[in-house]
Amino acid sequence: MKNPKIPKPTIKRLAVYYRCLENKKINGIQKTSSKDLADSLHIKASQIRKDLSYFGEFGKRGVGYDVDKLMNSIKIILGLDKKWNVAIIGVGNLGAAIANYTGLEKNGFFIKAAFDKDKSKIGKQVSAGVLVYDMKDLKKVCKQKKIDIAILSVPASVAQNVAEEIVETGIKGILNFAPISLNLPDKISVENVDFTISLKALTYDIVSNIGNIELKD
Amino acid sequence: MKNPKIPKPTIKRLAVYYRCLENKKINGIQKTSSKDLADSLHIKASQIRKDLSYFGEFGKRGVGYDVDKLMNSIKIILGLDKKWNVAIIGVGNLGAAIANYTGLEKNGFFIKAAFDKDKSKIGKQVSAGVLVYDMKDLKKVCKQKKIDIAILSVPASVAQNVAEEIVETGIKGILNFAPISLNLPDKISVENVDFTISLKALTYDIVSNIGNIELKD
Repeated sequence: MKNPKIPKPTIKRLAVYYRCLENKKINGIQKTSSKDLADSLHIKASQIRKDLSYFGEFGKRGVGYDVDKLMNSIKIILGLDKKWNVAIIGVGNLGAAIANYTGLEKNGFFIKAAFDKDKSKIGKQVSAGVLVYDMKDLKKVCKQKKIDIAILSVPASVAQNVAEEIVETGIKGILNFAPISLNLPDKISVENVDFTISLKALTYDIVSNIGNIELKD
Repeated sequence: MKNPKIPKPTIKRLAVYYRCLENKKINGIQKTSSKDLADSLHIKASQIRKDLSYFGEFGKRGVGYDVDKLMNSIKIILGLDKKWNVAIIGVGNLGAAIANYTGLEKNGFFIKAAFDKDKSKIGKQVSAGVLVYDMKDLKKVCKQKKIDIAILSVPASVAQNVAEEIVETGIKGILNFAPISLNLPDKISVENVDFTISLKALTYDIVSNIGNIELKD
């Protein structure tokens, strides 16, 4: 049941806390606190406590959090206790980079197939064990391989059409790398990744730091 | 001068509004409104008005916004009226994908150099006109080419060390693709891009939609 009161930035920060906890665990750390996490992540401890408070009580005042228990709770909240079958749609430079990204399986994301319309790519492997299928077999292969999530890495000009084809396959969510806002039914979860947006947030920060921004007023 | 009251999500949304306005302009549209933008972007019109209100009055009540004027204002706010020299640090799959991304120059981002320590890559072009330099020449080449921004696409295990080297070059900002939180001086602007965070926000949304999330309480 969706809780509309939980802001998207809170969810993204939970994923960041999870990554931070993973690092602590690797380093043999078993206990942490909001202050300790805050120091590692350069955010406010009060923000961490507020984010976690949406989901319940995880630590004891003055004692802090058990790393394993907090990780496990966040894992369940984010759906990372499940295995997710993923397909990459569009095997250009970016699609190939994602297919070869090594951090996915440990988080429960398994790339099961890739798709392209380029005949020279079809039938070849884009990464170890990941075959490139013909786009026209999208529906058949996605159903067969029980794909949950599509990573959309096609050019912006075709992204909306391809996304509509993806919806037809019964996929539940799309991670969209194409720099357009997709217009899809509400039942489909969509998350956008556009690094030029981050680049612009960066230049905003740089000009703000330098102090030569011209503000209207 | 930095305005600490402006939330980061507002800045990112400004960049999204800018992209949306660009599309309107390409399609010959000269006037828009917060409602019209909201419909295109699937967010609330009140959110758009609130975001813009941080920076002044851009439209007339009942008349809306002039597309060109609003674009120009956002351009200045985000620092996109300037040209930014960019270097890519780490020419793996991801670095190569970014180097070949075509949407950068129109936004004022010019990739002037790439760096790697892999001898087989050094001296070759990673994309048209972008040469790969030896990491050990980082400081010299960045100064020579007046690099403003580094795109950090090295493995997480070396990212902190490489980031510290980047700071030494006098670069103003880092777009960090490595899945770790960098610990750098405040004068350096850092923006993180981690698509696994977006993937986790997506699975959160999927499990929330499905209704099988187990919330503590």
